[in-house]
Amino acid sequence: MLGRLNHVGVATPSIEKSIALYRDMLGATKIHEPFDLPPQGVRVCFVDTPNSQIELIEPLGENSPLHGFLARNPAGGQHHVCFEVPDIHAAKAEMEAKGAKVLGEPRIGAHGTPVIFVHPKDMGGVLVELMETPKEAH
Amino acid sequence: MLGRLNHVGVATPSIEKSIALYRDMLGATKIHEPFDLPPQGVRVCFVDTPNSQIELIEPLGENSPLHGFLARNPAGGQHHVCFEVPDIHAAKAEMEAKGAKVLGEPRIGAHGTPVIFVHPKDMGGVLVELMETPKEAH
Repeated sequence: MLGRLNHVGVATPSIEKSIALYRDMLGATKIHEPFDLPPQGVRVCFVDTPNSQIELIEPLGENSPLHGFLARNPAGGQHHVCFEVPDIHAAKAEMEAKGAKVLGEPRIGAHGTPVIFVHPKDMGGVLVELMETPKEAH
Repeated sequence: MLGRLNHVGVATPSIEKSIALYRDMLGATKIHEPFDLPPQGVRVCFVDTPNSQIELIEPLGENSPLHGFLARNPAGGQHHVCFEVPDIHAAKAEMEAKGAKVLGEPRIGAHGTPVIFVHPKDMGGVLVELMETPKEAH
Protein backbone atom coordinates (compact mmCIF):
# COMPACT_ATOMS: atom_id res chain seq x y z
CA MET A 1 0.00 0.00 0.00
CA LEU A 2 0.97 3.64 -0.36
CA GLY A 3 3.31 4.34 2.53
CA ARG A 4 3.75 7.35 4.78
CA LEU A 5 4.37 10.69 3.17
CA ASN A 6 7.82 10.93 4.69
CA HIS A 7 8.55 14.42 3.37
CA VAL A 8 8.06 17.01 0.68
CA GLY A 9 11.32 18.04 -0.94
CA VAL A 10 11.57 21.79 -1.41
CA ALA A 11 14.46 23.17 -3.45
CA THR A 12 15.94 26.46 -2.31
CA PRO A 13 18.84 28.64 -3.38
CA SER A 14 19.58 29.19 0.33
CA ILE A 15 18.82 26.81 3.16
CA GLU A 16 19.64 29.55 5.65
CA LYS A 17 17.02 31.88 4.18
CA SER A 18 14.49 29.05 3.98
CA ILE A 19 15.12 28.15 7.62
CA ALA A 20 14.35 31.75 8.54
CA LEU A 21 11.16 31.55 6.47
CA TYR A 22 9.88 28.34 8.05
CA ARG A 23 10.90 29.45 11.55
CA ASP A 24 9.88 33.10 11.56
CA MET A 25 7.03 33.16 9.05
CA LEU A 26 5.45 29.72 9.44
CA GLY A 27 6.36 29.04 13.05
CA ALA A 28 8.38 25.84 12.72
CA THR A 29 9.86 24.92 16.08
CA LYS A 30 11.80 21.76 15.22
CA ILE A 31 14.39 22.41 12.54
CA HIS A 32 17.22 19.91 12.28
CA GLU A 33 20.87 20.72 11.62
CA PRO A 34 21.64 21.06 7.90
CA PHE A 35 24.08 18.55 6.47
CA ASP A 36 25.74 17.71 3.17
CA LEU A 37 24.67 14.69 1.14
CA PRO A 38 27.43 14.57 -1.48
CA PRO A 39 26.24 11.44 -3.36
CA GLN A 40 23.04 13.30 -4.25
CA GLY A 41 24.67 16.69 -4.76
CA VAL A 42 22.52 18.43 -2.18
CA ARG A 43 22.74 20.09 1.19
CA VAL A 44 19.75 19.04 3.31
CA CYS A 45 17.75 20.42 6.21
CA PHE A 46 14.66 18.76 7.65
CA VAL A 47 11.86 20.86 9.11
CA ASP A 48 9.36 18.89 11.18
CA THR A 49 5.62 19.18 11.06
CA PRO A 50 3.66 17.16 13.63
CA ASN A 51 3.06 14.37 11.11
CA SER A 52 5.69 14.73 8.38
CA GLN A 53 8.63 16.81 7.25
CA ILE A 54 9.69 19.42 4.76
CA GLU A 55 13.11 18.59 3.31
CA LEU A 56 14.90 21.77 2.29
CA ILE A 57 17.50 21.02 -0.37
CA GLU A 58 20.16 23.36 -1.68
CA PRO A 59 22.64 22.61 -4.49
CA LEU A 60 25.93 21.07 -3.37
CA GLY A 61 28.71 21.18 -5.93
CA GLU A 62 28.82 22.05 -9.60
CA ASN A 63 27.08 18.89 -10.73
CA SER A 64 24.13 19.16 -8.38
CA PRO A 65 20.89 18.12 -10.09
CA LEU A 66 19.28 21.12 -8.44
CA HIS A 67 21.03 23.69 -10.62
CA GLY A 68 18.66 22.98 -13.51
CA PHE A 69 15.62 23.13 -11.27
CA LEU A 70 16.70 26.45 -9.77
CA ALA A 71 17.47 27.86 -13.21
CA ARG A 72 13.81 27.26 -14.04
CA ASN A 73 12.61 28.25 -10.54
CA PRO A 74 15.04 30.82 -9.15
CA ALA A 75 13.09 31.36 -5.93
CA GLY A 76 12.93 27.61 -5.28
CA GLY A 77 9.84 25.44 -5.15
CA GLN A 78 8.42 21.99 -4.64
CA HIS A 79 10.89 19.47 -6.01
CA HIS A 80 9.67 15.97 -5.03
CA VAL A 81 7.48 13.97 -2.68
CA CYS A 82 8.81 11.02 -0.72
CA PHE A 83 6.74 8.00 0.26
CA GLU A 84 7.99 5.22 2.51
CA VAL A 85 8.22 1.61 1.36
CA PRO A 86 9.08 -1.48 3.41
CA ASP A 87 11.75 -2.78 1.00
CA ILE A 88 13.52 -0.65 -1.59
CA HIS A 89 14.58 -3.49 -3.85
CA ALA A 90 11.07 -4.90 -3.96
CA ALA A 91 9.73 -1.42 -4.65
CA LYS A 92 12.19 -0.88 -7.51
CA ALA A 93 11.32 -4.23 -9.06
CA GLU A 94 7.61 -3.52 -8.74
CA MET A 95 7.87 -0.05 -10.27
CA GLU A 96 9.87 -1.37 -13.20
CA ALA A 97 7.55 -4.32 -13.70
CA LYS A 98 4.70 -1.84 -13.96
CA GLY A 99 6.57 0.16 -16.56
CA ALA A 100 7.82 3.12 -14.54
CA LYS A 101 11.31 4.51 -15.13
CA VAL A 102 13.45 4.28 -12.00
CA LEU A 103 16.38 6.69 -12.00
CA GLY A 104 19.46 4.65 -11.17
CA GLU A 105 20.13 2.16 -8.43
CA PRO A 106 19.07 2.46 -4.78
CA ARG A 107 21.40 4.71 -2.80
CA ILE A 108 21.51 5.96 0.74
CA GLY A 109 19.18 8.92 1.22
CA ALA A 110 18.96 11.75 3.70
CA HIS A 111 17.45 9.56 6.42
CA GLY A 112 20.20 6.96 6.10
CA THR A 113 18.10 4.31 4.38
CA PRO A 114 18.12 3.42 0.67
CA VAL A 115 16.00 5.44 -1.71
CA ILE A 116 15.09 5.48 -5.39
CA PHE A 117 13.58 8.18 -7.55
CA VAL A 118 10.88 7.48 -10.11
CA HIS A 119 10.72 9.62 -13.24
CA PRO A 120 7.99 12.30 -13.24
CA LYS A 121 6.84 11.22 -16.70
CA ASP A 122 5.40 8.07 -15.13
CA MET A 123 4.16 9.79 -11.96
CA GLY A 124 1.78 12.47 -13.24
CA GLY A 125 4.53 15.06 -13.50
CA VAL A 126 5.67 14.53 -9.92
CA LEU A 127 9.21 13.44 -9.08
CA VAL A 128 8.55 10.62 -6.60
CA GLU A 129 11.14 9.41 -4.11
CA LEU A 130 10.58 6.03 -2.50
CA MET A 131 12.45 5.54 0.76
CA GLU A 132 12.88 2.42 2.82
CA THR A 133 11.30 3.02 6.21
CA PRO A 134 13.95 3.38 8.92
CA LYS A 135 13.85 0.32 11.15
CA GLU A 136 13.56 2.26 14.39
CA ALA A 137 11.05 4.81 13.14
CA HIS A 138 7.38 5.44 13.75
CA MET B 1 3.90 26.41 15.51
CA LEU B 2 3.97 24.85 12.07
CA GLY B 3 0.86 22.67 11.88
CA ARG B 4 0.23 19.27 10.34
CA LEU B 5 1.07 18.81 6.69
CA ASN B 6 -2.56 18.20 5.80
CA HIS B 7 -1.92 17.45 2.15
CA VAL B 8 0.15 18.01 -0.95
CA GLY B 9 -1.89 19.42 -3.80
CA VAL B 10 -1.10 17.71 -7.10
CA ALA B 11 -2.54 19.18 -10.28
CA THR B 12 -3.58 16.75 -12.97
CA PRO B 13 -5.26 16.98 -16.36
CA SER B 14 -7.28 13.89 -15.41
CA ILE B 15 -8.27 12.82 -11.91
CA GLU B 16 -9.38 9.47 -13.27
CA LYS B 17 -5.97 8.75 -14.75
CA SER B 18 -4.25 9.96 -11.58
CA ILE B 19 -6.46 7.70 -9.45
CA ALA B 20 -5.35 4.77 -11.58
CA LEU B 21 -1.73 5.82 -11.10
CA TYR B 22 -1.94 6.13 -7.31
CA ARG B 23 -3.99 2.93 -7.00
CA ASP B 24 -2.29 0.63 -9.50
CA MET B 25 1.25 1.98 -9.56
CA LEU B 26 1.76 3.28 -6.02
CA GLY B 27 -0.64 0.99 -4.18
CA ALA B 28 -3.01 3.51 -2.60
CA THR B 29 -5.87 1.68 -0.93
CA LYS B 30 -7.94 4.58 0.41
CA ILE B 31 -9.03 6.89 -2.36
CA HIS B 32 -12.00 9.13 -1.62
CA GLU B 33 -14.80 10.01 -4.02
CA PRO B 34 -13.93 12.92 -6.30
CA PHE B 35 -16.09 16.02 -5.93
CA ASP B 36 -16.42 19.49 -7.44
CA LEU B 37 -15.32 22.57 -5.54
CA PRO B 38 -16.75 25.33 -7.74
CA PRO B 39 -15.61 28.33 -5.65
CA GLN B 40 -12.02 27.29 -6.25
CA GLY B 41 -12.52 26.12 -9.83
CA VAL B 42 -11.27 22.62 -9.17
CA ARG B 43 -12.45 19.05 -9.01
CA VAL B 44 -10.85 17.31 -6.03
CA CYS B 45 -9.94 13.78 -5.00
CA PHE B 46 -8.13 12.92 -1.79
CA VAL B 47 -5.76 9.96 -1.68
CA ASP B 48 -4.80 8.88 1.84
CA THR B 49 -1.36 8.00 3.04
CA PRO B 50 -1.07 6.65 6.60
CA ASN B 51 -0.15 10.11 7.91
CA SER B 52 -1.33 12.66 5.34
CA GLN B 53 -3.03 13.02 1.98
CA ILE B 54 -2.40 13.76 -1.66
CA GLU B 55 -5.05 16.12 -3.03
CA LEU B 56 -5.54 15.51 -6.72
CA ILE B 57 -6.95 18.61 -8.39
CA GLU B 58 -8.28 18.93 -11.91
CA PRO B 59 -9.51 22.11 -13.59
CA LEU B 60 -13.23 22.82 -13.16
CA GLY B 61 -14.66 25.41 -15.55
CA GLU B 62 -13.09 27.85 -17.95
CA ASN B 63 -11.79 30.14 -15.25
CA SER B 64 -10.04 27.49 -13.21
CA PRO B 65 -6.71 28.73 -11.87
CA LEU B 66 -5.27 25.37 -12.86
CA HIS B 67 -5.39 26.04 -16.60
CA GLY B 68 -2.30 28.21 -16.39
CA PHE B 69 -0.44 25.67 -14.28
CA LEU B 70 -1.27 22.84 -16.66
CA ALA B 71 -0.28 24.94 -19.67
CA ARG B 72 3.19 25.14 -18.10
CA ASN B 73 3.07 21.54 -16.81
CA PRO B 74 0.90 19.51 -19.21
CA ALA B 75 1.46 16.23 -17.36
CA GLY B 76 0.52 17.80 -14.03
CA GLY B 77 2.73 18.28 -11.01
CA GLN B 78 3.09 19.46 -7.44
CA HIS B 79 0.85 22.51 -7.06
CA HIS B 80 0.76 23.48 -3.37
CA VAL B 81 1.35 22.27 0.17
CA CYS B 82 -1.27 22.68 2.88
CA PHE B 83 -0.48 23.16 6.55
CA GLU B 84 -3.09 23.21 9.29
CA VAL B 85 -3.62 26.22 11.53
CA PRO B 86 -5.88 26.53 14.58
CA ASP B 87 -7.57 29.78 13.45
CA ILE B 88 -7.64 30.99 9.86
CA HIS B 89 -8.29 34.64 10.66
CA ALA B 90 -5.44 34.76 13.14
CA ALA B 91 -3.21 33.05 10.60
CA LYS B 92 -4.15 35.55 7.88
CA ALA B 93 -3.48 38.49 10.18
CA GLU B 94 -0.15 37.03 11.26
CA MET B 95 0.97 36.33 7.69
CA GLU B 96 0.08 39.83 6.60
CA ALA B 97 1.71 41.41 9.65
CA LYS B 98 4.90 39.58 8.69
CA GLY B 99 4.70 40.92 5.17
CA ALA B 100 3.42 37.93 3.23
CA LYS B 101 0.85 38.37 0.47
CA VAL B 102 -2.35 36.47 1.23
CA LEU B 103 -4.43 35.74 -1.87
CA GLY B 104 -7.95 36.91 -1.10
CA GLU B 105 -10.19 36.29 1.87
CA PRO B 106 -10.64 32.99 3.71
CA ARG B 107 -13.01 30.65 1.91
CA ILE B 108 -14.24 27.13 2.47
CA GLY B 109 -11.73 24.58 1.27
CA ALA B 110 -11.91 20.96 0.25
CA HIS B 111 -12.12 19.72 3.84
CA GLY B 112 -15.02 22.03 4.68
CA THR B 113 -13.03 24.44 6.82
CA PRO B 114 -11.77 27.89 5.84
CA VAL B 115 -8.48 28.19 3.98
CA ILE B 116 -6.19 30.89 2.64
CA PHE B 117 -3.40 30.74 0.09
CA VAL B 118 -0.12 32.59 0.57
CA HIS B 119 1.75 33.83 -2.50
CA PRO B 120 4.75 31.72 -3.53
CA LYS B 121 6.93 34.83 -3.79
CA ASP B 122 6.90 35.05 0.00
CA MET B 123 7.11 31.28 0.58
CA GLY B 124 10.33 30.29 -1.19
CA GLY B 125 8.54 29.62 -4.46
CA VAL B 126 5.98 27.30 -2.87
CA LEU B 127 2.25 28.03 -3.02
CA VAL B 128 1.22 27.51 0.61
CA GLU B 129 -2.33 26.79 1.68
CA LEU B 130 -3.22 27.31 5.32
CA MET B 131 -6.29 25.40 6.44
CA GLU B 132 -8.19 25.62 9.69
CA THR B 133 -8.00 22.24 11.40
CA PRO B 134 -11.36 20.45 11.29
CA LYS B 135 -12.83 20.39 14.78
CA GLU B 136 -13.43 16.65 14.84
CA ALA B 137 -10.15 15.67 13.24
CA HIS B 138 -7.00 13.96 14.46
